[in-house]
Amino acid sequence: MRILEERILKDGKVFSGNVLKVDSFLNHQIDVKLLAEIGKELKKLYNDCAITKVLTIEASGIGVGCMVAQFFDCPLIFAKKSKTINIKGDVYTSQVESFTHQCTYDIIVSKDFLKNTDTVLIVDDFLAKGNALNGLIDIVRQAGAKLAGCGIAIEKGYQGGGDKLRNQGIRVESMAIIEKMDDKTGEIVFRR
Amino acid sequence: MRILEERILKDGKVFSGNVLKVDSFLNHQIDVKLLAEIGKELKKLYNDCAITKVLTIEASGIGVGCMVAQFFDCPLIFAKKSKTINIKGDVYTSQVESFTHQCTYDIIVSKDFLKNTDTVLIVDDFLAKGNALNGLIDIVRQAGAKLAGCGIAIEKGYQGGGDKLRNQGIRVESMAIIEKMDDKTGEIVFRR
Repeated sequence: MRILEERILKDGKVFSGNVLKVDSFLNHQIDVKLLAEIGKELKKLYNDCAITKVLTIEASGIGVGCMVAQFFDCPLIFAKKSKTINIKGDVYTSQVESFTHQCTYDIIVSKDFLKNTDTVLIVDDFLAKGNALNGLIDIVRQAGAKLAGCGIAIEKGYQGGGDKLRNQGIRVESMAIIEKMDDKTGEIVFRR
Repeated sequence: MRILEERILKDGKVFSGNVLKVDSFLNHQIDVKLLAEIGKELKKLYNDCAITKVLTIEASGIGVGCMVAQFFDCPLIFAKKSKTINIKGDVYTSQVESFTHQCTYDIIVSKDFLKNTDTVLIVDDFLAKGNALNGLIDIVRQAGAKLAGCGIAIEKGYQGGGDKLRNQGIRVESMAIIEKMDDKTGEIVFRR
């Protein structure tokens, strides 16, 4: 998506350790208009899939998740990262390794909200190694729901998570795929 | 707001310990249409305030924050709850005591995104004792920004946080104010 690529080139900052900082428009300050454009684009791509639930993971997935879900006219569910006293009853759980936080955590979705009659679009702001997506896909499978595919704002193509999923036959649509980044020069190259 | 009150009566569940579970439409599964109605209502109420930033706190504030910000045609900023390796540089910080998680944590907003030229609307899904709001208000003050007021989905009136803020002259607009709840009968009474 051209406007997202242009925004990454304009405001994204490359740091060592494969870190792309886009917190001026995606995951600290959020440009809601840009997220709405991502929602419109994903609606076009998944228009024929009869999506009944959009699924994401807290925290920064919630913004893109809400803005996408409104175009599908369906609820957003966000997987929670730790058990709180407000979640009671039966839950689906899976384990996710965090690239950003360098730890492993459980993700949880209440069984009340995901059923085997649902068709699910998984969305997230970032896709790197695919750890969060794998956890969410695991939960969709536990629910017996149908996975339409994934919709991602920024995929780090060189970390391989997206292609690994595509090779398994899972549909992954990323609005921008970064083929390589250079923290010395700040250069960012997109996949064509 | 009538549709929110009706939804609370229909789908909210009262548990002991002052817990109102609304995770079927507000903070686990999100009814994005309902949040859009809240956004429209807050836009009406704060229409003359020239809001330049909507500010909230992760995680469940992000949904309502995004849906509100799009009506004000301005960015959303969400305060982060712990320092991650992706936040660099100068930040505003404040401390918040969590009712849900029974702990105290730091909240962080990058100085890049909140300036003394901003006029801020703070939004959140819940207002109980007002701890999260007080932390966010503290950050707005540190930035030297103008606080237009607060916009809340559900205020637990009997916990007093909202009225304490109003008594300080801070504008607090809550879409539903619960005057009392009874976990034995499930009864929920709204402020009129």
